[in-house]
Amino acid sequence: MEPLVVIVSNRGPFSFEPVADGSFSVQRGTGGLVTALGALAEKHDVLWVAAAMSRGDFQWAKAHAGRPETVEGVRLLLTRPNKKAYDGYYNVIANPLMWFIQHQMWDTPRSPSITRETWAAWEKGYLAVNRMFAEAIAATLKAETRPVIILPQDYHLYMLPDYLRRLIGDRAQIQPFVHIPWPGPDAWRVLPGQIRTAILSSLLQSDRVGFQTEKDAFNFVQTCRFYLRDAHSRGTRDTVYYGERVIKSIAYPISIDTQKLAVLSEEPQTHLLKSQLYNFVSDRKLILRVDRIEPSKNILRGLEAYRTLLDEHPEHRGKVQMMALLVPSRMEVDEYQDYLRDIMSEAGMINAHFSTPYWEPVRIVVGDNYERALAAMQLYDVLLVNPLTDGMNLVAKEGAVVNQRDGVLVLSEYAGAFFELGEHALAVSPFDIYGTANAIHQGLTMPPGEKRQRAEALRRIVEKADIRRWFYDQVDDAVQALNSQDRKVSTPSTP
Amino acid sequence: MEPLVVIVSNRGPFSFEPVADGSFSVQRGTGGLVTALGALAEKHDVLWVAAAMSRGDFQWAKAHAGRPETVEGVRLLLTRPNKKAYDGYYNVIANPLMWFIQHQMWDTPRSPSITRETWAAWEKGYLAVNRMFAEAIAATLKAETRPVIILPQDYHLYMLPDYLRRLIGDRAQIQPFVHIPWPGPDAWRVLPGQIRTAILSSLLQSDRVGFQTEKDAFNFVQTCRFYLRDAHSRGTRDTVYYGERVIKSIAYPISIDTQKLAVLSEEPQTHLLKSQLYNFVSDRKLILRVDRIEPSKNILRGLEAYRTLLDEHPEHRGKVQMMALLVPSRMEVDEYQDYLRDIMSEAGMINAHFSTPYWEPVRIVVGDNYERALAAMQLYDVLLVNPLTDGMNLVAKEGAVVNQRDGVLVLSEYAGAFFELGEHALAVSPFDIYGTANAIHQGLTMPPGEKRQRAEALRRIVEKADIRRWFYDQVDDAVQALNSQDRKVSTPSTP
Repeated sequence: MEPLVVIVSNRGPFSFEPVADGSFSVQRGTGGLVTALGALAEKHDVLWVAAAMSRGDFQWAKAHAGRPETVEGVRLLLTRPNKKAYDGYYNVIANPLMWFIQHQMWDTPRSPSITRETWAAWEKGYLAVNRMFAEAIAATLKAETRPVIILPQDYHLYMLPDYLRRLIGDRAQIQPFVHIPWPGPDAWRVLPGQIRTAILSSLLQSDRVGFQTEKDAFNFVQTCRFYLRDAHSRGTRDTVYYGERVIKSIAYPISIDTQKLAVLSEEPQTHLLKSQLYNFVSDRKLILRVDRIEPSKNILRGLEAYRTLLDEHPEHRGKVQMMALLVPSRMEVDEYQDYLRDIMSEAGMINAHFSTPYWEPVRIVVGDNYERALAAMQLYDVLLVNPLTDGMNLVAKEGAVVNQRDGVLVLSEYAGAFFELGEHALAVSPFDIYGTANAIHQGLTMPPGEKRQRAEALRRIVEKADIRRWFYDQVDDAVQALNSQDRKVSTPSTP
Repeated sequence: MEPLVVIVSNRGPFSFEPVADGSFSVQRGTGGLVTALGALAEKHDVLWVAAAMSRGDFQWAKAHAGRPETVEGVRLLLTRPNKKAYDGYYNVIANPLMWFIQHQMWDTPRSPSITRETWAAWEKGYLAVNRMFAEAIAATLKAETRPVIILPQDYHLYMLPDYLRRLIGDRAQIQPFVHIPWPGPDAWRVLPGQIRTAILSSLLQSDRVGFQTEKDAFNFVQTCRFYLRDAHSRGTRDTVYYGERVIKSIAYPISIDTQKLAVLSEEPQTHLLKSQLYNFVSDRKLILRVDRIEPSKNILRGLEAYRTLLDEHPEHRGKVQMMALLVPSRMEVDEYQDYLRDIMSEAGMINAHFSTPYWEPVRIVVGDNYERALAAMQLYDVLLVNPLTDGMNLVAKEGAVVNQRDGVLVLSEYAGAFFELGEHALAVSPFDIYGTANAIHQGLTMPPGEKRQRAEALRRIVEKADIRRWFYDQVDDAVQALNSQDRKVSTPSTP
């Protein structure tokens, strides 16, 4: 029997606004997950469960009284979390605590602190919202007779496997995917033992856990071994043995929508922006970066590397143009504001020091314009992607596909994309400003033959691994496990 | 044949000042290593190699022209590093970079940065000074016919094993000891691959590497496996197989000089300070901390936990006294100055909020007075030791031995001492302010019987493991290896 595939994520694929006649207008999200979903829905029966966010979402959810409803060909169930619980879950635990732990972005002597409020947000927020998700799913599955595959997405839903197992037992394959990096055991020391144990042992109620890279998958196994007395790896790199359970830790590197990208690159708006950029850059070589304004993206050290380049290699002065397209992100958070201030100030100092009447060495563009980014990516000579850590980094993949100048990719060895693209990029340690400057120089002076070879290799790799493939691979593994379970029926699934 | 034991450390056991008649006055250091040395010198022939520091040291070293000289029963060799090389070795690489990596104390979005100066300090500083040490040792050993055991101390000398092997081959047992924490692989990502590989593969030229705890020893094995292609652990937790070499990773927890402590506790000065403190604390319960002013000691979160205690348990107001004895450290470094400012400001705010005409809730004493610390340690009801990470933390051990009130130890699970003392202490996650406040409350309200039982258990454990034992254990392991080498003669020592 064909299985039902349940995707669970904090944010859903659509948002709703009530319109005059009592119905709702639907806005489709733009993320890669939504694109991939379309492809998945062609092959499988899909139910997507997410939290209502906007007022309109809540009204839509209320109108359907907790039952799934088909929207643009997808069955959707929106849960309605209590506002205070959601705030603790999202604004205290998931985003500031889990996200920062997994990106190792602390100023450790001062933050984070686990306070009374953190404990309250854990118990009445994160646990409560995860339990609410599990209960909504369990209620929907009550009348379901097909085999079920449940795919919880990311760091908001780490407690879901535990609650699901209690409610629905072993009848479903549970297979979370973690979109952000999974660091080694040390990073998890920040959590009190009780919270850490709850998260790890919940994830081990899954059948398999998906990560962006093999390093993340390996780190997950190590973290479980390090902190859970009953977790073992028995010499493997990708399996956790936990009591009676056997959990696989697997890399499914996410990718981009290459088809959509090809279409967007040819739109008139993109062409227009490209010709404007072309005039601005003129015959200079373009060193580009495109990032959310986010400390883990390491934008500051990128500027310092550019300064070092101009210091060490004065021959590039006036012959290169650095451009940073920066998309505002979480600007209500102090750390993010401070980070943007430091970026602007460093850029100003570089321009004050090196500019001439005819040359502004670095141009920072703050704003969100995807067509502009696409236009710039077509033109770069060097693309600088130097995050301190990054789950995947899709800019590296997008650049590889749309660039038209055999541009060189300077890539941090701690971007998830490094595992697929590192061989054909110039690798840098993101902390090494001097090394990064040298890599940019190497990119600027690389012989055309080598540039072409590398650029073509990068493009081939990315085009082969479209975003659709990413979801298919995960569901295929779950289906295979379901089938082999069927064959064994009453024999236990652990060796 | 009895072996020669060579101790190598950045700082030596003595410092010298020239006196009028052309000879030198000698000042003996006070650290635990110097004490342990005395005991070691009773059982073995010891040569101590260190760097000249002061002007007087340089003059003494010059007077002896690179030959060892016996000082107070110890043969001493002082090397004379070039001033600029030493500066790069000590002030660029060892203290700011290695120390911070191993304590994971970064504000990662901004520091550290590996710059041109870092690379220069690595090559012309750290490598040069390590090579100089190795050459001085090799020259001294030229005429040596006995078996040799070389014990390099701490993070200043990571490159020594490599240079030593090149100069003297396999004739010596090389056995470094790392006094500070060894974190897991993630922390080492900060170093460029070339530097990281050099350090790890140098340490693997040793026969065994000593650490404070089994966790550090395990982390070392993991770090080597993670970053060196040819390093394997073959399922063990404590062995690295590296090419033809087999390297053991072993915990030798350092301890304190319990005999000296007993003597100092009975000195008149200590008694005087104790009675003064007694008057100050009066019938209140004393919550004590004694630390260098150092972000890794987590003094700020300790104060915040105290504030939480007074908030959550108003019954303690006016009945407890927090006292923090803080020893100035690296006060020329901005981070350390800022940290002290934040501590003073937090203490001021707590006193402003909770003080009464007869009660100052927290008293900060900045200064270095060991007798005062000893006096206070005799009197505490609760000793707060909550570092974010700490190689060992000797305050926890000293307190356990000298306290006279069956005081309760509140101990961070990330202090090295936790491995020996954790069972009888109240364990806290150092990031968890709320949990730390609860542990202090538990300590303040613990029944006398349980307090006595725990205090006695702690005292017994520390008294059993005196500092002398620590050096003996290491040398015993090396001697045993030498003996089994002798027995095998020409068979290779790897399986």
